[in-house]
Amino acid sequence: MRVRVRYSECDPMGVAHHGVYPLWMEMARTELLRSLGVTYAQMESSGDLLVVVSLAVEYKASAIYDDEVGVRSRVTRVTPARIEHAYEVRLLGRTNPMASLHTGALLATGKTTLACVDRGGRPQRLPAILTGGAGAGPVG
Amino acid sequence: MRVRVRYSECDPMGVAHHGVYPLWMEMARTELLRSLGVTYAQMESSGDLLVVVSLAVEYKASAIYDDEVGVRSRVTRVTPARIEHAYEVRLLGRTNPMASLHTGALLATGKTTLACVDRGGRPQRLPAILTGGAGAGPVG
Amino acid sequence: MRVRVRYSECDPMGVAHHGVYPLWMEMARTELLRSLGVTYAQMESSGDLLVVVSLAVEYKASAIYDDEVGVRSRVTRVTPARIEHAYEVRLLGRTNPMASLHTGALLATGKTTLACVDRGGRPQRLPAILTGGAGAGPVG
Amino acid sequence: MRVRVRYSECDPMGVAHHGVYPLWMEMARTELLRSLGVTYAQMESSGDLLVVVSLAVEYKASAIYDDEVGVRSRVTRVTPARIEHAYEVRLLGRTNPMASLHTGALLATGKTTLACVDRGGRPQRLPAILTGGAGAGPVG
Repeated sequence: MRVRVRYSECDPMGVAHHGVYPLWMEMARTELLRSLGVTYAQMESSGDLLVVVSLAVEYKASAIYDDEVGVRSRVTRVTPARIEHAYEVRLLGRTNPMASLHTGALLATGKTTLACVDRGGRPQRLPAILTGGAGAGPVG
Repeated sequence: MRVRVRYSECDPMGVAHHGVYPLWMEMARTELLRSLGVTYAQMESSGDLLVVVSLAVEYKASAIYDDEVGVRSRVTRVTPARIEHAYEVRLLGRTNPMASLHTGALLATGKTTLACVDRGGRPQRLPAILTGGAGAGPVG
Repeated sequence: MRVRVRYSECDPMGVAHHGVYPLWMEMARTELLRSLGVTYAQMESSGDLLVVVSLAVEYKASAIYDDEVGVRSRVTRVTPARIEHAYEVRLLGRTNPMASLHTGALLATGKTTLACVDRGGRPQRLPAILTGGAGAGPVG
Repeated sequence: MRVRVRYSECDPMGVAHHGVYPLWMEMARTELLRSLGVTYAQMESSGDLLVVVSLAVEYKASAIYDDEVGVRSRVTRVTPARIEHAYEVRLLGRTNPMASLHTGALLATGKTTLACVDRGGRPQRLPAILTGGAGAGPVG
């Protein structure tokens, strides 16, 4: 997943605000799901909602305005009710002459844990597309 | 409606990003509605959704990080299907020693037009609480 | 300029929040500038800052989560100190099965006026790259 | 620190997006600093910048639109170059009739680690106001 850092995403230090990285990580999850042949919009319309129950980010270097940034996400663990992802955010290209950083530099790493719930917020088994297994339904 | 400018709302120029003002104006509308004895959350749960169909903002001076800002909103026109508001955004207090501006300074003015729709997006009459009149229902 | 609607950009109605459109319009301006051979990051580092002094958006139809949206921007007027843009936001693709809208549908139109200031906030002439003319410097 | 959940902060599930919590936690840090007699705006203008190097959030229950939410922050560890905070986000009041949750319910807990850098991004000792000690300057 590639994204160009928006002006509105940067703070008075001139760097992408730390609160933006969780949004980029969510976009990378969306694209990972799409690569499995399903969209989160489809999952949601069939009543399987994924909620973030845990989030962690380690910041290594700053992204700045107009950087091209890449976010790689992969599934690190799947249980019947939860799915864990890990993320790497890297610099893909920089136009800004004010600060130098080599292409490919690691900007941040992250981890999330998601749970599946129905529209009423009750825990659900993850859909089969995510577990590689038997599919959605009430947990336990 | 008073709000303190968040660090994440400011951009590399060190000022509140112009895209934040429509969010503050929305908050002021919410509080205006609350002062009428109804919350937008209640309206929404009864199926009357308000959508912004037109937005305009004139920027006069910059708000900066940690400013206390006040937004005054008032209804300027009501038709059976639409409601118009005007807004004034003023500086209420500044802690930042980097830039001076007098308390009460006008930062921006704004205007919005809202329409009422049902959950399917079909136009509705505005609820009575907004028109002072006979109430919600399909238009025409 | 193409953008995919982020989950975090959508509100409880399930549509892109009206406050997101000014951010997309800003991204389209950035790309328009890039197509002229200059980046806003370069302009800013040479001390020419563009500030939005006026913004208007007319909303025609809703973008929803995961839509691919295109924003076309063009310069409509240039004076020594100000530059005006017009924008068209159109639907390029929709994956969400919950709502139908034809590809190419107009979602919103917009207008902005920008002024050029130096780091101290004083009005400047627009840089030559924007005016097609003699270049930056104090106004008048 | 009290905040009312903005409509623009909520996502299509009708709950505050998980990416908003780090912004609330930052606001709570700002207020904690203010209670020590200094503003972050002052720190920043004297050249001491705090950057987030690590962030973690555990989500327990959802905040929804128009909730009043309280964020309590406290310092959990200080070293010459870093400061760690812990956060509790709790429900203070709910107007929305669609979902019930008791006042005082824990919505999320969080942790951050911040480092102090100068304008060039070089590590600095934390200012004395944060360490209770001898004050800012290059580390080591």
